Amino acid sequence: MKVERSYEEFVTVRDALTGSIGFVPTMGALHEGHLSLIRRAKEENDHVIVSIFVNPTQFLEGEDLDKYPRREEADRRICELAGVDLLYMPTTDQIYEEDELSIGAPKIRGYILEGAKRPGHFDGMLQVVMKLLNLSRADRAYFGKKDAQQLVLIRQMVRTYFMRTQIVPCEIVRDPDGLALSSRNLYLSDEERRRALSLSRSLKRAAEMIQNGERKSEVIRRAMEGILESEVDRLEYVAIVDREFRPLERVEEGNTIILVAAWVGKTRLIDNLWL
Amino acid sequence: MKVERSYEEFVTVRDALTGSIGFVPTMGALHEGHLSLIRRAKEENDHVIVSIFVNPTQFLEGEDLDKYPRREEADRRICELAGVDLLYMPTTDQIYEEDELSIGAPKIRGYILEGAKRPGHFDGMLQVVMKLLNLSRADRAYFGKKDAQQLVLIRQMVRTYFMRTQIVPCEIVRDPDGLALSSRNLYLSDEERRRALSLSRSLKRAAEMIQNGERKSEVIRRAMEGILESEVDRLEYVAIVDREFRPLERVEEGNTIILVAAWVGKTRLIDNLWL
Repeated sequence: MKVERSYEEFVTVRDALTGSIGFVPTMGALHEGHLSLIRRAKEENDHVIVSIFVNPTQFLEGEDLDKYPRREEADRRICELAGVDLLYMPTTDQIYEEDELSIGAPKIRGYILEGAKRPGHFDGMLQVVMKLLNLSRADRAYFGKKDAQQLVLIRQMVRTYFMRTQIVPCEIVRDPDGLALSSRNLYLSDEERRRALSLSRSLKRAAEMIQNGERKSEVIRRAMEGILESEVDRLEYVAIVDREFRPLERVEEGNTIILVAAWVGKTRLIDNLWL
Repeated sequence: MKVERSYEEFVTVRDALTGSIGFVPTMGALHEGHLSLIRRAKEENDHVIVSIFVNPTQFLEGEDLDKYPRREEADRRICELAGVDLLYMPTTDQIYEEDELSIGAPKIRGYILEGAKRPGHFDGMLQVVMKLLNLSRADRAYFGKKDAQQLVLIRQMVRTYFMRTQIVPCEIVRDPDGLALSSRNLYLSDEERRRALSLSRSLKRAAEMIQNGERKSEVIRRAMEGILESEVDRLEYVAIVDREFRPLERVEEGNTIILVAAWVGKTRLIDNLWL
């Protein structure tokens, strides 16, 4: 496995790779969720590139940029063992210069739910993903469904800016108890972790209701809130939208995402279900 | 010459081209300036792609989007005669969808001079150029130095977003009397055209002063203003900057651009000199 920090060297190594390229951009602190993306990228491509970059432009003032978990050595070994061909770990000045061009998330789709709670987050996320996709010139890039709105916005970016990488959505990976994997789970105490299970439990309840014939978003949403409110410290939203993030009054099978965001202690968690 | 209007068909034809691609994006109303770009693209590449698209997002409210000259049939013949391989003339709905991602020009370099007079113009320009460069996947793209600030911003975009197209700056083409070619020259009456010559005359005067040893920007600027003020209807700016658009107190040979923008009648004109 080659490890590069400068973009010139990264591009040189990347250009020497022939055949198809699968790309997994990450912020590090790799867990089984990331590994599932890397494994799929390996199955579907001749070579796999992973990037690890804690992108400052997608953190808002007061968010956890400084304490975001950094585990460089462990991440490196995980990539090596997973058979990654090229690992890109740039410094910030390799990605950004002074007086930068910005990317603005769509004014509607980019400013509801996560976009409303974290205004500007998607601008920075799209900016770095565009840069990394251009750098990697991957045939396919792999993103988890856990960041559902991020995934929908990245697909829109690739479509409307005529980029050539295929975006591959990947299933959420969960711990056996149901908790969706996230690097931020590291922040949770045992007690918080137990309460954090209410997110996946509320989604499971929604799935059961739908299986039993319920279609009204309002009814499902209220049942989820009932499960969440006694467990989390602050519920940010429960939302039922279509695959383009338009609100749905009734669940449409094959075109629905149910989302939840909540604080447990000092940790903000999100989870969702695509159906 | 193939002419395409849908981006799917354009991409199909483009992907069938082998060898190097030179690309000339235009807003049509082609003149000798555009032709000089096309000729250079032909010299330096195996194939030449031209696009004609009057991009609505780079016109501000109240600007000349509706009356901007459209000469589709003439443009087509000019491209055919110039040996263009592929002409792309998309409709607006082929380039944009609802609730789009935006591009923001750099907050300093993008909001002085043209950016100050036309706030938002560069956002829209960069947006469409990024889309067109991605669509064409050109090895080289050709831009005139007449839109100097545009050129500098496009080079920054390509550099900082790790795009693979080489941006080739091309010399300004002038009528024998000195007037820099522009599609907007079509708006000028004979009397206005005569007064419009003061732009190139002021730049010629600046060049002479520098040749005679003058280096102080302030002195040069005042001499230019003296020439312009009696001729144009409103002088917007005379500026002396380096190649990154930082103001210069003293001319630096090899790193200077002298710019002028002014209204003659209802027509806004720009011109500049790189030295």
